[in-house]
Amino acid sequence: MNQENLTGHISRRYNADIEHVRQSVLEMGGLVERQIEAALQALKDGDSEAALKVAQDDYKVNRLEVAIDEECTRILALRAPTAVDLRVVIAIIKTITDLERMGDEAEKIARLIAQLATQERPTNGYREIRHLGKHVIAMVRNALDAFARMDVDLAVQTALDDQVIDQEYEAISRQSITFMMEDPRTIRRVLDVMWIVRSLERIGDHTKNICEYVIYTVKGKDVRHTSLDDMLRGSESEEGAEPAP
Amino acid sequence: MNQENLTGHISRRYNADIEHVRQSVLEMGGLVERQIEAALQALKDGDSEAALKVAQDDYKVNRLEVAIDEECTRILALRAPTAVDLRVVIAIIKTITDLERMGDEAEKIARLIAQLATQERPTNGYREIRHLGKHVIAMVRNALDAFARMDVDLAVQTALDDQVIDQEYEAISRQSITFMMEDPRTIRRVLDVMWIVRSLERIGDHTKNICEYVIYTVKGKDVRHTSLDDMLRGSESEEGAEPAP
Repeated sequence: MNQENLTGHISRRYNADIEHVRQSVLEMGGLVERQIEAALQALKDGDSEAALKVAQDDYKVNRLEVAIDEECTRILALRAPTAVDLRVVIAIIKTITDLERMGDEAEKIARLIAQLATQERPTNGYREIRHLGKHVIAMVRNALDAFARMDVDLAVQTALDDQVIDQEYEAISRQSITFMMEDPRTIRRVLDVMWIVRSLERIGDHTKNICEYVIYTVKGKDVRHTSLDDMLRGSESEEGAEPAP
Repeated sequence: MNQENLTGHISRRYNADIEHVRQSVLEMGGLVERQIEAALQALKDGDSEAALKVAQDDYKVNRLEVAIDEECTRILALRAPTAVDLRVVIAIIKTITDLERMGDEAEKIARLIAQLATQERPTNGYREIRHLGKHVIAMVRNALDAFARMDVDLAVQTALDDQVIDQEYEAISRQSITFMMEDPRTIRRVLDVMWIVRSLERIGDHTKNICEYVIYTVKGKDVRHTSLDDMLRGSESEEGAEPAP
């Protein structure tokens, strides 16, 4: 039933395989992070062409997903991992699905930014989007760190950060509605802003999912539909699991 | 390496396990379908309470996901399936993730409908939402049928249907923007409509994913990032893979 310990040879091969696939996930995550960053940089610069380049590069994220997915299937078929090893592979299969969808959101954001860049800019240079964007990018980075080190405390903390992202998103949405009502000529532009922040908020959701897979891998329990309080209790840590500010 | 054919006993047990988990996926899919239907019925009836009931019931979808996920992990650990058997299990793990997120969208739709139900209704009773909703529900049903019968042709056809959903969604969005510009007092209500159709469009996307997992299971190749033309060619069918009308 359990083949991983049959021989040291198999075990070492398995470890090399899993290490390779873990590195690929981090590479894919880094790429997604850079896609979001580049899109927001294009917004800051009002650079439509740079934004379109980001959108066109999404195929790179997709290509990595397919490759990692195939590698995971191969590991499951050839190595038949069990217990924590099996959980790692399952967590990776799920993580890359979320990363791929984060890439899709980055593509959508980039297309909207390319559109906005051709129009008149508000005086604040879309500061609210860039502020939320910075927050989301930091969350993505922390989730990837938590994944790299299988750090449950960081994963819990980062998952909790999603609440702050949601609040910020809600605030921008409310403000946007006010803008539209005050000056209906801005409706199209403000809607583009709303779609962008919505996509950023979704990236936060996907990032939270990744944190939950880290917790699942280490703890062996599915925390996706448990409350944040339970998640905090579950982290069994003296510190490091403070609610986000 | 390959354990499934070691003894007929293991094989039969495996088949029983996989059959059970497949039934659970269909149960989960049926529940998601009913959640979307019930939300749209509440919209038709202007019944805020019924809509909230739908939102509250989302935990049932989540509960099923966790149970199926655990069963899949157990099958992988104990039976170490390979080839098509392994692909079935992986496809199920991915399918339930999409079903769970479709449930989340149904919950969001239900909450927005509960909100709309307390407000003045447009003369057409939100016909455009209900029309799109019917289309999406039909797509979900077809995808579940394709999954139940592992029917590649139906899966391809249903995946192509997503284009129609997207077009319908775009049309409603454009129309909504016009409404808002013509009468800014409607902005809040029209935005709720836009969020609802956006969620329906996303349910279409998730449904398309499920179709692609069916194709992957049967064909053994990942069609997620290939073009629709390639998908059509890949279906190798004399008929039945016509583009959606």
